[in-house]
Amino acid sequence: MTQSTPSGRLPATIGVDIGGTRYKICWLGAEGGPRDVISRPTGGHRQVGTVLAEIAEAIAETRAAAIHAGHDILAVGVGIPAVLDLQGGRIVLLPNFSGSWQNFRLAAALEALVRLPVHIINDARAYTLAESRLGAGRGVADLLAITLGTGVGGGLVLSGALRFGPNHMAGEFGHITYDPHGARCGCGARGCIEAYASGSAIAAAALRPLLQGRMPILRELIGNEPARLDADAVARAAAAGEPEAEEIYAQVAHVLGLGIAHVMKIADISCVVVGGGVAAAGEVLLSPLREAVRANSIVFGAFQPRIVRAEVEQAGAAGAALWAREETMKGSRA
Amino acid sequence: MTQSTPSGRLPATIGVDIGGTRYKICWLGAEGGPRDVISRPTGGHRQVGTVLAEIAEAIAETRAAAIHAGHDILAVGVGIPAVLDLQGGRIVLLPNFSGSWQNFRLAAALEALVRLPVHIINDARAYTLAESRLGAGRGVADLLAITLGTGVGGGLVLSGALRFGPNHMAGEFGHITYDPHGARCGCGARGCIEAYASGSAIAAAALRPLLQGRMPILRELIGNEPARLDADAVARAAAAGEPEAEEIYAQVAHVLGLGIAHVMKIADISCVVVGGGVAAAGEVLLSPLREAVRANSIVFGAFQPRIVRAEVEQAGAAGAALWAREETMKGSRA
Repeated sequence: MTQSTPSGRLPATIGVDIGGTRYKICWLGAEGGPRDVISRPTGGHRQVGTVLAEIAEAIAETRAAAIHAGHDILAVGVGIPAVLDLQGGRIVLLPNFSGSWQNFRLAAALEALVRLPVHIINDARAYTLAESRLGAGRGVADLLAITLGTGVGGGLVLSGALRFGPNHMAGEFGHITYDPHGARCGCGARGCIEAYASGSAIAAAALRPLLQGRMPILRELIGNEPARLDADAVARAAAAGEPEAEEIYAQVAHVLGLGIAHVMKIADISCVVVGGGVAAAGEVLLSPLREAVRANSIVFGAFQPRIVRAEVEQAGAAGAALWAREETMKGSRA
Repeated sequence: MTQSTPSGRLPATIGVDIGGTRYKICWLGAEGGPRDVISRPTGGHRQVGTVLAEIAEAIAETRAAAIHAGHDILAVGVGIPAVLDLQGGRIVLLPNFSGSWQNFRLAAALEALVRLPVHIINDARAYTLAESRLGAGRGVADLLAITLGTGVGGGLVLSGALRFGPNHMAGEFGHITYDPHGARCGCGARGCIEAYASGSAIAAAALRPLLQGRMPILRELIGNEPARLDADAVARAAAAGEPEAEEIYAQVAHVLGLGIAHVMKIADISCVVVGGGVAAAGEVLLSPLREAVRANSIVFGAFQPRIVRAEVEQAGAAGAALWAREETMKGSRA
């Protein structure tokens, strides 16, 4: 994709990351990172057609910016926090969005609006692709990427290729079972990692001791306002030496470490990229995480993956653009 | 490998399966299953050189039988219950064998004795290859094979290829953690699946109630002789309606089902092949196992792998022969 297009301009793709709160759009040439990022509210409670019409307008703006910069847009990638039917370009299950989104043929509908090929992908797999091609996973053949935010997402690169599997389930790290007797998850199973290691879970774990008058450092950090409690505040309290905050991150590290050890024994990888808002905790999380992976590893921890922080800005939208690029190149080879 | 060799004979490979108790040898042509199977005691407590000299003699016998049947042996595959360094042809860790086996360069030593290329492979991965190419996994692109015997082994086929991973750890199903607070396993981690779902674990679970005078059906089946207690006897008691025997298999199914659900979420597969002595239990095991996989699956069990019994006789030796064939073909393409 480094050659110029028939128009004489350089080839590029557009990436769209549709989140529960905001959607983000950027374009990506063969060189460099995401450009001309647009970020607007999604309003997923609205009809899918209304939201798509707005996204199509934003794609047109992005395309104009890319053409202005001497590029031609070949395709659009769309990342979405859903279980997807990739072949059919269809949403199978998209929690927290209105009923009109469920079972919707997103790719065909958006193609009709923007008159470009559209390739959909799960948002965590898009993030994984961005870290693998542009970020902390560059040059790594076998990689797990996890993203710790409101929920926990993941993706797997094996022998250099993003793994989907026959049901497009591969890399669903957040829904690996931690406790089979735990609470029922939105996915249908019980005790998923997501319920113990997401940003929401971290804040929830700190709420009770805070309301009981404990965790003085955390209380001061949030100005005694429980509404300002989030995973980042708990991380800052842990870094400042609050023992209960450290314990919360140690438990999160235990849960994630066990999941990573599962991935080591099942798929085998050499690197784990940790991203999302919770990763801002840095060593407060990564240091106990490395220890937890070692403790649950085979052959006395002889084989350890590197565990590093994610690097790519706007990884969701950039990854969706990369997905469109890889699908376009696959099509031109076929 | 269907064309004839320069000598005008048909190409074939030899497979060796070195177990803790016995080693098995066979040869495999392009058509049909394993032929002229030899089975002799290993004596793994002896020096590796002594055992290898015996195996080299058995390989010579097998080669003579293959030549007699109009075939030429191109290479030898050796399956072994060890952590291996495939590139170096070296044993990294081989539990229950004498010190002389540890760190031994098995491939080079056997090549010198038999004057044929030798390719080593973990025994459970060899079994997986046999089921994938000749058995219950024929035509399945994404497959988990597990073998339930004295221990629990496994292997993964992804997109048609046996998966090894950067540390040759992929498919180590028996060492997925079931209970992180469980007993320390020989592998260094705690509470591995193997400790709960192997044939030895099943027999051990029945021993206490038996000694306490419970499980009358089981007691009668083994003629009141605890020395005759094994997983098969517990399975027959469960099939005959012994409630505690059924409970033991339900617990084994729970442990295995959770592990299979992990594999679904991490690597995604469409079929699970269950082999080894414990698989003889049939529906006593497979029926609760299907239910356990469903209960721990994502999206309310919408995506379920088929769970079937293994089919290949002498799958360990046959798989080692297949491994030698695939490595030989890879070499001839390179």
